[in-house]
Amino acid sequence: MQLDKSAIEAHNEYLIKDHERRFNYIAAEVQDVEALLQKLIDFQVAIPSWALGTGGTRFGRFPGGGEPRNLEEKIEDIGLLHALNNSSGAISLHIPWDIPENATHIKALAAQHGLQFDAMNSNTFQDQPGQAFSYKYGSMQHVNKAVRQQAIDHNIEVIKYGLDLGSTSLTVWLSDGSCFPGQLNFRNAFQNTLESLQQVYSALPDDWKMFVEYKAFEPNFYSTTVGDWGQSLLYASKLGSKAYTLVDLGHHLPNANIEQIVALLLMEGKLGGFHFNDSKYGDDDLTVGSIKPYQLFLIFNELVEGMDARGMKHATDLGWMIDASHNVKDPLEDLLQSVEAIMITYAQALLVDRKKLAEAQLNNDVVTAQEILQQAFRTDVRALVAAARLRSGGALNPLAFYRQHDIRAGLINRRGSKSMATGL
Amino acid sequence: MQLDKSAIEAHNEYLIKDHERRFNYIAAEVQDVEALLQKLIDFQVAIPSWALGTGGTRFGRFPGGGEPRNLEEKIEDIGLLHALNNSSGAISLHIPWDIPENATHIKALAAQHGLQFDAMNSNTFQDQPGQAFSYKYGSMQHVNKAVRQQAIDHNIEVIKYGLDLGSTSLTVWLSDGSCFPGQLNFRNAFQNTLESLQQVYSALPDDWKMFVEYKAFEPNFYSTTVGDWGQSLLYASKLGSKAYTLVDLGHHLPNANIEQIVALLLMEGKLGGFHFNDSKYGDDDLTVGSIKPYQLFLIFNELVEGMDARGMKHATDLGWMIDASHNVKDPLEDLLQSVEAIMITYAQALLVDRKKLAEAQLNNDVVTAQEILQQAFRTDVRALVAAARLRSGGALNPLAFYRQHDIRAGLINRRGSKSMATGL
Amino acid sequence: MQLDKSAIEAHNEYLIKDHERRFNYIAAEVQDVEALLQKLIDFQVAIPSWALGTGGTRFGRFPGGGEPRNLEEKIEDIGLLHALNNSSGAISLHIPWDIPENATHIKALAAQHGLQFDAMNSNTFQDQPGQAFSYKYGSMQHVNKAVRQQAIDHNIEVIKYGLDLGSTSLTVWLSDGSCFPGQLNFRNAFQNTLESLQQVYSALPDDWKMFVEYKAFEPNFYSTTVGDWGQSLLYASKLGSKAYTLVDLGHHLPNANIEQIVALLLMEGKLGGFHFNDSKYGDDDLTVGSIKPYQLFLIFNELVEGMDARGMKHATDLGWMIDASHNVKDPLEDLLQSVEAIMITYAQALLVDRKKLAEAQLNNDVVTAQEILQQAFRTDVRALVAAARLRSGGALNPLAFYRQHDIRAGLINRRGSKSMATGL
Amino acid sequence: MQLDKSAIEAHNEYLIKDHERRFNYIAAEVQDVEALLQKLIDFQVAIPSWALGTGGTRFGRFPGGGEPRNLEEKIEDIGLLHALNNSSGAISLHIPWDIPENATHIKALAAQHGLQFDAMNSNTFQDQPGQAFSYKYGSMQHVNKAVRQQAIDHNIEVIKYGLDLGSTSLTVWLSDGSCFPGQLNFRNAFQNTLESLQQVYSALPDDWKMFVEYKAFEPNFYSTTVGDWGQSLLYASKLGSKAYTLVDLGHHLPNANIEQIVALLLMEGKLGGFHFNDSKYGDDDLTVGSIKPYQLFLIFNELVEGMDARGMKHATDLGWMIDASHNVKDPLEDLLQSVEAIMITYAQALLVDRKKLAEAQLNNDVVTAQEILQQAFRTDVRALVAAARLRSGGALNPLAFYRQHDIRAGLINRRGSKSMATGL
Repeated sequence: MQLDKSAIEAHNEYLIKDHERRFNYIAAEVQDVEALLQKLIDFQVAIPSWALGTGGTRFGRFPGGGEPRNLEEKIEDIGLLHALNNSSGAISLHIPWDIPENATHIKALAAQHGLQFDAMNSNTFQDQPGQAFSYKYGSMQHVNKAVRQQAIDHNIEVIKYGLDLGSTSLTVWLSDGSCFPGQLNFRNAFQNTLESLQQVYSALPDDWKMFVEYKAFEPNFYSTTVGDWGQSLLYASKLGSKAYTLVDLGHHLPNANIEQIVALLLMEGKLGGFHFNDSKYGDDDLTVGSIKPYQLFLIFNELVEGMDARGMKHATDLGWMIDASHNVKDPLEDLLQSVEAIMITYAQALLVDRKKLAEAQLNNDVVTAQEILQQAFRTDVRALVAAARLRSGGALNPLAFYRQHDIRAGLINRRGSKSMATGL
Repeated sequence: MQLDKSAIEAHNEYLIKDHERRFNYIAAEVQDVEALLQKLIDFQVAIPSWALGTGGTRFGRFPGGGEPRNLEEKIEDIGLLHALNNSSGAISLHIPWDIPENATHIKALAAQHGLQFDAMNSNTFQDQPGQAFSYKYGSMQHVNKAVRQQAIDHNIEVIKYGLDLGSTSLTVWLSDGSCFPGQLNFRNAFQNTLESLQQVYSALPDDWKMFVEYKAFEPNFYSTTVGDWGQSLLYASKLGSKAYTLVDLGHHLPNANIEQIVALLLMEGKLGGFHFNDSKYGDDDLTVGSIKPYQLFLIFNELVEGMDARGMKHATDLGWMIDASHNVKDPLEDLLQSVEAIMITYAQALLVDRKKLAEAQLNNDVVTAQEILQQAFRTDVRALVAAARLRSGGALNPLAFYRQHDIRAGLINRRGSKSMATGL
Repeated sequence: MQLDKSAIEAHNEYLIKDHERRFNYIAAEVQDVEALLQKLIDFQVAIPSWALGTGGTRFGRFPGGGEPRNLEEKIEDIGLLHALNNSSGAISLHIPWDIPENATHIKALAAQHGLQFDAMNSNTFQDQPGQAFSYKYGSMQHVNKAVRQQAIDHNIEVIKYGLDLGSTSLTVWLSDGSCFPGQLNFRNAFQNTLESLQQVYSALPDDWKMFVEYKAFEPNFYSTTVGDWGQSLLYASKLGSKAYTLVDLGHHLPNANIEQIVALLLMEGKLGGFHFNDSKYGDDDLTVGSIKPYQLFLIFNELVEGMDARGMKHATDLGWMIDASHNVKDPLEDLLQSVEAIMITYAQALLVDRKKLAEAQLNNDVVTAQEILQQAFRTDVRALVAAARLRSGGALNPLAFYRQHDIRAGLINRRGSKSMATGL
Repeated sequence: MQLDKSAIEAHNEYLIKDHERRFNYIAAEVQDVEALLQKLIDFQVAIPSWALGTGGTRFGRFPGGGEPRNLEEKIEDIGLLHALNNSSGAISLHIPWDIPENATHIKALAAQHGLQFDAMNSNTFQDQPGQAFSYKYGSMQHVNKAVRQQAIDHNIEVIKYGLDLGSTSLTVWLSDGSCFPGQLNFRNAFQNTLESLQQVYSALPDDWKMFVEYKAFEPNFYSTTVGDWGQSLLYASKLGSKAYTLVDLGHHLPNANIEQIVALLLMEGKLGGFHFNDSKYGDDDLTVGSIKPYQLFLIFNELVEGMDARGMKHATDLGWMIDASHNVKDPLEDLLQSVEAIMITYAQALLVDRKKLAEAQLNNDVVTAQEILQQAFRTDVRALVAAARLRSGGALNPLAFYRQHDIRAGLINRRGSKSMATGL
């Protein structure tokens, strides 16, 4: 199923008057609207294939029906999102959940929807049927070289799948760690992991990046072998110039200052990518911007400042991805809300008066610095985001469109109410 | 010093055109603007006398100059804030820092500035010169009855000062607790505290309220005897109908859901008052809305919903106070920012479409429920808040006014650059 | 399979000399050894049926083989533990995972192993096949009365199963809550839950207890409707004298002082039961005593003090249960370690010199109070625990016995390496 | 005042029989007692000069009397501790609180008490009277070069004082950071700090070490410029081979795995020193081992393992210091308890069967790994620690001795009940 462009046009026509009133107001308030709109149009967030079904917890999963049953249907779902918002033009695959049996066909299908292939994701946190060795006690950290080799081989295989599809990056998230004191020799676990990563790194094509993702806890509850940004940076530095740290918003200890981490990684030239979601307690994987929108703004504020300082292109020089998953919303509606939150926040960060902010900082004028940030954050930029969407052919209100056209019902109709997507 | 009304008028005249453009835009977007403006006009936040000087930490204090040297100057400072924003029309005194030697004079002075006397605050967390017994090991929890009696007597004395000034509530914050396991018998500490509070309660005039404030930790670092809302509610329930729980935003464990606590206390008819501030780690006492503005919005959302459900008057049926204190801003600028954040958030909470929200909740439509809250929070209501201020005679931009008139320089000029207000 | 008593005797004989040297030493150091041993012998910890298989996380489960395939085999497993340690003489069932098709047979089997039936556990956090209504949006809190009724009916059914088996308590853990701001009206969720609990309470036999378990977060990640001890106490108080709060060690916010909560609940006569486990980050469900053994000691210290103050019998007046579950250990070995940690800690708490401690507290002698607690905690009581086990017919070293007799291999042999117990 | 050796002898004689019974028992249980005792004898923990008075919080300070009034009396106090426990043979000075006016005299006095001069501590977190520039907005991070230069000069001056006294290390703890979003450009703050540290590093004698201490928060409550081990390691790596990371137990976010940090820093050859204390919520600065003794054990376990792996000498190759400070205990009693907790924990870590642990780790035998650690931790090693103290001329029970000889009363007698030591 591909969305009928005329349906979107009809939707937009219906809303256009209200939109224009709002847009005209805000456009008059901000400087250089055109440049800002172009940045919003260029900004694309990848959707991971596993976010298209309801996520679950160890206590249960409550599927909602119409979930994609295969890679083709996943591409179709993301294509639908992208047709509506024109901001989610990439898909991030997970192996073995999304092995592309026929890469040519899959590439063609994605192209049809205007989608690119973002970072490839490997999986050494679960055992697959028929697998020779178990990851019960870790993968790249494992005391047994054969298990490590299996994990290395799997990652190299993932790179190959990615090459076929035109991806240029590999995200390595390791759940490796321990549940009990004494279980691991931390140093050996680090060294084993480093050597394993080095093997994978050797197999990385020259134009690829490797993202080393860190996480404070879960599924291991005593230690994690790539546990914080400091550890990830150590690995990435030892690996080489193609290795970077990946920040996932939900992977920190309580009260961590994530925006400072982002700023320092950019300073070191080692920030590679970003996983968006939101959380209150741990890796809750909630909708982006649903719990701490100001934190998200502060992070984008550092991203814009730090990328500009290095002359990086916002749209392409970091890997942007949503990584959310939970029980209670329609996954596609959830993704529309997440992308919207990201675009709003990016727009607000672009509004920050950087010259005045730098001046206030030089004067230790803390009050003014706060005013400048709040001035941007308190501005209602929704009409700017909608305008960018409109210009690039999307819908003024993607969520309303999705509901009015009862898209979930259509998906259930075709895929069944019991279909369950691969994922957590 | 009292502000010249004509200076405010000149300031407003200069800004009025821009303001009207913004106000007209937003006024057209929201329903029932007049009712909303009236609620904003009525809403008053008390300023505690100790927030007028730079606060400090155990590591040091960096005073900024021109701090009020006595109660008269504190009233003058709050009068100045109130003249600018018309939203801070009350002062909350702390005994013994603010003993009114001449109550009639003080009342007259406050009236001159349009200020009322909010909750009185007692202090049994510090030893005063000449005090018979030390609070080193607690006050109302103390194993020694004489120490408890001293704390009780002090609180009764505080009530008397309050009566003279027209206050009608007493806030009891106890730092009582322990630093080490074994130091306290928790049960005895609770019972001693309860009996002490009962003595104070007996001395409470019929039309007064007693607010029992809780705090998770600091200055005691192992246990606190009124440590969370559950404990405070136990005390308040055992004390009687004039006793209530007071919520301070900074007094919780990491990740606590404060808005749920607020909703439940309102449900039980036991929420008495509120101390506004913001924090990232502990009781950081930062400017309201500077760290987690969405959390503040969610709290106001519960306040409005819960108070409406009980037919309570927003402006007067709870005690609203700022309780912030830190090192790096001009305290008056800080308070202007705090009050502004409160008014903005209150306005946003008033915008929530309660009927639609209730409907979404009944339909388990989580996506729409989130949209409704975000619709309110993402709305730029600053022009509404400014309009309310304008109508009641305040300044369109209090902070700009304060800076343009170089008020701090004037205060330093008169009070000296080394003056230090009583407080932490 | 039931353990051969003579095998345990042979094991003990082999170790007896070493044991006696250690026991004689420590017996000479402590007062009133006989009374202490008797308390240790009397103390029994229930094992939940779901702890007998490897637990999992949302990221995966790594079963270890030989897991019990049905209720009979679960009873057999706990019987085995009890034969070894004589301290785990009760089983806690979970409906629908453990529906006793033939109660008479099951009771006889349990009796054969010396096991009693501890609290019954209901399940309204998962959907069962064929269930009329989904718990996706809660059970007892649900906006739809029919869903609430289904949850009520299920709990009443669980009581009936318990009656057949001789259980006398019902544990209600509700995962009810919300994942996003706005999803719930907190007050309505509370009232619905209260009314639902009242229905179940009405069906409770006179000699039964109802335990209302609270949890801060997970599987809901924004709010939980029975979220902390304050909320649980509110429910239990409104329900009546048969309702109590149940404390699970892993269900708190970071840094919570659990021992103080325990002391206050005992003070109020509302502590009903206890779920033992350990954790570093959240509800990690790790082996008891593996992460924070001193916190466990401080909790037992309050339990002993508070129960003695109310004249409660340690062994029977509270419900004691282990609630742990994780990926990396043999579940039976894990349970042996957990029970051992509990017995050691209970013994240490019994060693606390209560008279001296009360005296130190009265003198505000914090240093001595700490010394008294540390004196008990630093004492090596393992030989006392072993002696209690020996006297009641258990093994001196249950874990060593389990390994030497290769019990897991036997279980795998009979049950298969792919058997998976019901549970998380 | 110096302790009379004969008084200690009398004390020991009185306790010797009980001691010998306990020692003989435990000595027979452990392997290679002699080597272990020697390690205990060699291990020395430095006492910071500021721990000799009661610490305070921002809410107040409750001095206890008899506090040292100058550097000489501070040396006297530590000399007294060292005479009692023979494990606190070093003093760590803080400038400007402890400026040695006459270094020769001070050195002689220290030598008389058997004390060495541990790391020197600089102070750029407070303003001193007459100081040209304020540290209100930071010191080494400051936007104003002149302020940075002042901080650099101060640190170089501290090195000079240290040279005079025979110290060989400088600890730089910076409170630099920010209280509000926007206040700092994180990258500039880092670069300014780095350049400032480089200036100090240049002035560092060849045989000195520089310790870069990190802290998550307080006194800055939004960001800290040396905020975690990752940041500290970045600075230390960029500075050079004489720069190291210093770990203070209280300077982490909630739930941090400190033992893993320690292991990784040792792996990188960048762990320089250690500040001991304990805490439940933040930087509570409580007595070592009073809250989380098992965490302390796990840290020592990594220290012993990691230092042995690098061939480092336990006693001298890291800087060991206590850094505690609170309101409710006699500071000298507190320090005796802290040193005792350290020695006990070090002894337990030495008991870990490293060969078996490595074997269990290689076999993924998590249960046995836990048993090995718990076997060491559950062992009552107090008699071993006492024996080490006895051999080196200390008191069998330092705390009992201190109380029996009413040492505090003597100090109050000579110094007055109102004396207050410099410090927090």
